[in-house]
Amino acid sequence: MQLKRKDILGIADLDREEIDLILQTAESFKEVSNRDIKKVPALRGKTVVNLFFEPSTRTRTSFELAGKRLSADVINISSSSSSTLKGESLLDTIRNIQAMHSDFIIVRHASSGVPHFLARSVESAVINAGDGANEHPSQALLDLMTIKENKSTIKGLKIVIIGDILHGRVAHSNIHALKKYSADLHLVAPPTLIPSGIERWGVQVHYQLDEALVGADVIMLLRLQLERQEGSYFPTLREYAELYGLNRSRLALADSDVLVMHPGPINRGVEVTSDVADGLSSVILQQVSNGVAVRMALLFLLSGGQHA
Amino acid sequence: MQLKRKDILGIADLDREEIDLILQTAESFKEVSNRDIKKVPALRGKTVVNLFFEPSTRTRTSFELAGKRLSADVINISSSSSSTLKGESLLDTIRNIQAMHSDFIIVRHASSGVPHFLARSVESAVINAGDGANEHPSQALLDLMTIKENKSTIKGLKIVIIGDILHGRVAHSNIHALKKYSADLHLVAPPTLIPSGIERWGVQVHYQLDEALVGADVIMLLRLQLERQEGSYFPTLREYAELYGLNRSRLALADSDVLVMHPGPINRGVEVTSDVADGLSSVILQQVSNGVAVRMALLFLLSGGQHA
Amino acid sequence: MQLKRKDILGIADLDREEIDLILQTAESFKEVSNRDIKKVPALRGKTVVNLFFEPSTRTRTSFELAGKRLSADVINISSSSSSTLKGESLLDTIRNIQAMHSDFIIVRHASSGVPHFLARSVESAVINAGDGANEHPSQALLDLMTIKENKSTIKGLKIVIIGDILHGRVAHSNIHALKKYSADLHLVAPPTLIPSGIERWGVQVHYQLDEALVGADVIMLLRLQLERQEGSYFPTLREYAELYGLNRSRLALADSDVLVMHPGPINRGVEVTSDVADGLSSVILQQVSNGVAVRMALLFLLSGGQHA
Repeated sequence: MQLKRKDILGIADLDREEIDLILQTAESFKEVSNRDIKKVPALRGKTVVNLFFEPSTRTRTSFELAGKRLSADVINISSSSSSTLKGESLLDTIRNIQAMHSDFIIVRHASSGVPHFLARSVESAVINAGDGANEHPSQALLDLMTIKENKSTIKGLKIVIIGDILHGRVAHSNIHALKKYSADLHLVAPPTLIPSGIERWGVQVHYQLDEALVGADVIMLLRLQLERQEGSYFPTLREYAELYGLNRSRLALADSDVLVMHPGPINRGVEVTSDVADGLSSVILQQVSNGVAVRMALLFLLSGGQHA
Repeated sequence: MQLKRKDILGIADLDREEIDLILQTAESFKEVSNRDIKKVPALRGKTVVNLFFEPSTRTRTSFELAGKRLSADVINISSSSSSTLKGESLLDTIRNIQAMHSDFIIVRHASSGVPHFLARSVESAVINAGDGANEHPSQALLDLMTIKENKSTIKGLKIVIIGDILHGRVAHSNIHALKKYSADLHLVAPPTLIPSGIERWGVQVHYQLDEALVGADVIMLLRLQLERQEGSYFPTLREYAELYGLNRSRLALADSDVLVMHPGPINRGVEVTSDVADGLSSVILQQVSNGVAVRMALLFLLSGGQHA
Repeated sequence: MQLKRKDILGIADLDREEIDLILQTAESFKEVSNRDIKKVPALRGKTVVNLFFEPSTRTRTSFELAGKRLSADVINISSSSSSTLKGESLLDTIRNIQAMHSDFIIVRHASSGVPHFLARSVESAVINAGDGANEHPSQALLDLMTIKENKSTIKGLKIVIIGDILHGRVAHSNIHALKKYSADLHLVAPPTLIPSGIERWGVQVHYQLDEALVGADVIMLLRLQLERQEGSYFPTLREYAELYGLNRSRLALADSDVLVMHPGPINRGVEVTSDVADGLSSVILQQVSNGVAVRMALLFLLSGGQHA
């Protein structure tokens, strides 16, 4: 089977067959990263450009490794070194990259919609690596992969997403993804961090963490973007941690086989205490491993690769 | 045929046979970047060091891709991370790179003559990627390649170069290059941005854009280095755009087959309006594509490669 | 023979058999960097991560080249782009890198002990590329290799180390290394830059340079960390250069076959005058070349490679 699309811009656009294909392909690539020789020739002679307008270590490194393990040439361009400093338009930047015959452009940008705009302008496959508060599809795909590896089915699972839903592209992509698999979705946050009208997405909203956690099968923590908060969404970090931080006693409210997930980087003591982040329920590092596999799958499938 | 020189420091040093050899080799490498597998083993096991003391995305990326598509190992060193921060001399920096057995060192520096100085001190082939206001030879070579692809001959072509000739290394390299091919060269700029005595180079100087454009076969726009101007060379950007910006009505003064060129990054609305930059006469993105091919040719020929 | 350890954290831990194995392996890899095709497939499909929390050009580049010449995939992460900016703990950063299936993590950090701490937490081989004032083992190994290439034996050689012994991780690693080979070690510095009680390490301390230099076989200069000194350890740079700088007349006090060494970057006119740094006794660039060979040997041996 083949993926019949040029770009990966958001989970909202993907149908379940496409997501299943990506996840199955990712499972077969996961094995590559466990080999002694972590390299396959699938994308030899292809050019992957990481174009990051926001700082990122984890996502950039994950895409870079995915590209290199598929034998592609990988070029990193970050905003600090970029010509956008010299006043060049975004469109000119990406057209130039295309003119150098890139095959893939991985874009992260602080504004929603930038990858969509760029994708229409270039032949290269564009992968959205996070656009403003909109989507971060590869994160939701690796989250889905991690849940599927640990649970027999997503349908009907009680999944509780905790934190900044308002600004959270990880949350948005995950809500889209998990709804497609008919999960029972619960969102928990201070009222200021919940977008109004989100109940129409078919999710349940809670302002009290404890009530939401009862019987949860999966707890997805969102990173509190400390560097972006200007203090106006909730009184203090301490109060946030008190009301919305996951700790051992709260974890006991959930199902005994609950999975604790976090996209990283973790603010220990804020979103989650260390004993829980490092505890037996945590699949946080499995998420990171799956991230490389999912990104290999995306690059492979977008290049026209077939999954057997 | 082989290129019998160690370094590429400027167009002034190259004779026409050498330039022809480089451009013919570039044409054959251009095909590589259009292949499905954009990679040839020519420089496997060679080390290319990009040593950029000024920020650059486009030129650095172009050399990086050129090296990687030839299978070389490419190392990026930028001034922000470099030991020059720790007070090391330029000469020590480059001798160290040489001692690690580099084969090629690509140098960009704010001071004229730095690549020449370094080239004398190391065995590695040195390529000048822009030195102060002096030269930027690979840019002129890709410009030449682009003109040759679109015009049957350069001899006698009316070529109009517009903008900051005084600080313009791109202009300087192109004047050297185009004179070697007997083009009919016209320079246009505010009087403050024209070096005195430049008529001796065999070029015609204009202060009025419209008179210069009549019947032009090629219009080369120069980037206005907004970040370097301290406002003293011309009154306002708006006035500059008014007097020296290329727009559709001015373009109509030129030959109907005129080529519009710009080394990038473009300041849209300053040097050129968007309709012209993106119009049918524009070969700006072809320049970018040719840049990778020219740089592959330079690396290949300097390593002793032969063109059939 | 094989190296039976997971990490290289300091010279203090290594025994002479291990050091000999590393140096013999490095000699055989040195030949690779002199070849026309400087590349062997030994580490194909392995992932090397350069994790530098302090800026470095030379050491990062040397490890990057070592990895690439062994055909490994190399990923650079520097503190400026790293998630530690986002408040992530060091341990989370490295666990994430491990979860992406790194094989080697090369760590430089301003705090002593960081590589040791990280090594206990990950499966990857950790190589200390400099931790605070503690150790910089690959530097001492390349220094040892350079001495061995020039002297028939280290035993009994009079080796004079000049400079900031107090903060000097290069000095500390070299003292450990040279003691293992029974060198006759002399340290020279202003009293404020000598740790108290260091005579117990079996070294002789001098405050006068001239008396120490008489008959020296090797002079190891230490870099004065100008960017770290806050002016309190000695009155002025000029006075330091006057009292502790190596120049031609002082060099004449040493043995006629003396080796002059410096880990770089050199502060010319401070630690050493240019005529001596570039003179016949200097092996400073040989140290740099040997650096790549030593780092190739470390990566190769830690991956389980055998030396014939």
